[in-house]
Amino acid sequence: MHEKQLLLIPGPTPVPPSVLREHSRPMINHRGPEFKALMDEVTEGLKEIHKTEADCLILTTSGTGAMEAAVVNTLSPGDHVLAVVIGAFGDRFAKIAEAYGAKVERMDFEWGKCADVAQVAARLQADTDKSIKAVLFEQNETSTGVVNDVEGIAKAVREHGALCIVDAVSGLVAIDLKTDEWGVDIVASASQKAFMTPPGLGFVTMSERAWEAAKTAKMPKFYFDLAAAKRLAEKGQTPWTPALPQLFGLREGIRLIREEGLDNVFARHQRLGRMARAGARALGLKLLADETCASPAVTSIRAPEGLEAKALRKLALDKYGVVFAGGQGQLADSIFRIGHLGFVSETDVLTAITVLGAVLQEMGVTCDTGAALAATQSEM
Amino acid sequence: MHEKQLLLIPGPTPVPPSVLREHSRPMINHRGPEFKALMDEVTEGLKEIHKTEADCLILTTSGTGAMEAAVVNTLSPGDHVLAVVIGAFGDRFAKIAEAYGAKVERMDFEWGKCADVAQVAARLQADTDKSIKAVLFEQNETSTGVVNDVEGIAKAVREHGALCIVDAVSGLVAIDLKTDEWGVDIVASASQKAFMTPPGLGFVTMSERAWEAAKTAKMPKFYFDLAAAKRLAEKGQTPWTPALPQLFGLREGIRLIREEGLDNVFARHQRLGRMARAGARALGLKLLADETCASPAVTSIRAPEGLEAKALRKLALDKYGVVFAGGQGQLADSIFRIGHLGFVSETDVLTAITVLGAVLQEMGVTCDTGAALAATQSEM
Repeated sequence: MHEKQLLLIPGPTPVPPSVLREHSRPMINHRGPEFKALMDEVTEGLKEIHKTEADCLILTTSGTGAMEAAVVNTLSPGDHVLAVVIGAFGDRFAKIAEAYGAKVERMDFEWGKCADVAQVAARLQADTDKSIKAVLFEQNETSTGVVNDVEGIAKAVREHGALCIVDAVSGLVAIDLKTDEWGVDIVASASQKAFMTPPGLGFVTMSERAWEAAKTAKMPKFYFDLAAAKRLAEKGQTPWTPALPQLFGLREGIRLIREEGLDNVFARHQRLGRMARAGARALGLKLLADETCASPAVTSIRAPEGLEAKALRKLALDKYGVVFAGGQGQLADSIFRIGHLGFVSETDVLTAITVLGAVLQEMGVTCDTGAALAATQSEM
Repeated sequence: MHEKQLLLIPGPTPVPPSVLREHSRPMINHRGPEFKALMDEVTEGLKEIHKTEADCLILTTSGTGAMEAAVVNTLSPGDHVLAVVIGAFGDRFAKIAEAYGAKVERMDFEWGKCADVAQVAARLQADTDKSIKAVLFEQNETSTGVVNDVEGIAKAVREHGALCIVDAVSGLVAIDLKTDEWGVDIVASASQKAFMTPPGLGFVTMSERAWEAAKTAKMPKFYFDLAAAKRLAEKGQTPWTPALPQLFGLREGIRLIREEGLDNVFARHQRLGRMARAGARALGLKLLADETCASPAVTSIRAPEGLEAKALRKLALDKYGVVFAGGQGQLADSIFRIGHLGFVSETDVLTAITVLGAVLQEMGVTCDTGAALAATQSEM
């Protein structure tokens, strides 16, 4: 019965049937006219969703590969990079830059909080000799369910002059990101989150400033060479054979997003987040993130005292077919997460709270599921 | 009507309906038990097909990414590498190593010929101080339709002691490759060729010697870090979110290969290759490769004098819905290629010859299609 599962993890997210059907299309020549039409259409949609006039390149990879492409195409070994870390993915971004020889200065914030914009701005202002070449940070930190103030951080980075590089893998489409208006140079994202399509594609936007930096960037790359991707994109192609099914699916995913309307998609995610948090709180659970920076895409919940998050997730999966995510990194054992991004409805969140209540009760935790559902519903 | 096309390019190859249907499966948790079962089953199948007991790692990437992974995990900048180049993909392999700082010594052979094993062996024997750390070469050079003597080259490499790294992207499954018996350290391959599955996955086998080299390899990597892939594979996972649909599809593709029997699959490809060559020759066309090293996976054909390969392909596509491939690199304008690997039947090759005959006649070339079909059929 695993095809009856309700998948509530922060990616891969549930995929609409119309997108899945696209994945069954016969193959086409990736150097032919049908592919060019597909690439052109998908690229236009991606730029619209990213709110950018800049290049948006499509790579066959996961979100991590898109993050790597952002780094290796614009930086050189020895470059001083400021990595703003608020969780496991911020940490990963820093490690990618380190792996390629950047001199990474980490600015760590407590997991569960967002980055303090004033602190980031102060650090950048103190860098009077402009040694910092780039600032790396998350839009939505998947591991904690926390949203950064991208506009605020980007403003500070703009004033300093460093490259502004944002990992938006789990936030894009769920949360507004005004790439051009806010002055974000590079956005890394991927197909398997709020785009409602399966994993397999990564996306990278590149501003004029990013291309300028690319000219002198000396980190080695081949597969992730964005200049090659740009040259081929201009012919409606990719340098290497692309994941065709995901491109067919993405065309349909973008169509669905347009049909709902991007602002409505953002509002739905806000609503789903409020619902999940209200429901969990009303079940007596503690949330990891403050309400002020809590993510509309994923909610991190502390396991009740004396109860293993892993055991709770296992019961939800085995008995109810509801898939919650575990914690990552330092939070691996202490939290679980409800993903509510992409093809997720209000009713799915009500179901999540229903099952969470049932599981808690079975594990000996006293809670009032009816009251929790009422609280959840009140945020609809 | 483009879904009625007959796709005869050397990848992406046509995909069986049962594999396409697998691509429509709902998403699953890539950290959950269903995924572990999928990974374990697919990995076992891949090892069987690669004829190896070594690790076989699965990456979300194209074949080029698998080639890059092979290089960056086992070599360091400055390492002396011998690249045996017989076409565009051998050239690409050399360029990947160069991009990461290897000191690449190229051994170029005329495009359309295979590598001369004796010459490769002589070069390695002359390297008495063992400065050559690795030898890179193709099993099947897709751009020319030429097969190398992998066993022979691998033997020479073994005697020397360098790492033997083979790009088998377009050859594996179509042509026998006895990874362990021949002493090949690393095989790079991908999903979209004779595996009969869509593009999106790359595979890399790593021998004990390859892992030993990996310990001191200093080329930077993060997304393509095979040690991370191995650690996670042991838990039935991948380090980064994988292209799930392709994994579902690959499970079915492997099932189909086992059902046909690997030796029968090899024999079918040999037959398809002989048929394509006999048909083309009987139409009065010249083949690029000698019969002794012609590929069972793809046939390269010279455009008739005074006729553009591109125009010929366009007519075949527009009027008959048959997709032939163009040339690559130095052969871009002078040849076209018929891919006959993966989910391709004898009747598909007869159709290819039929349409090729029709197109030639329409373009003013005199040829006897009936005789060509008889010649094609005689090789069945």
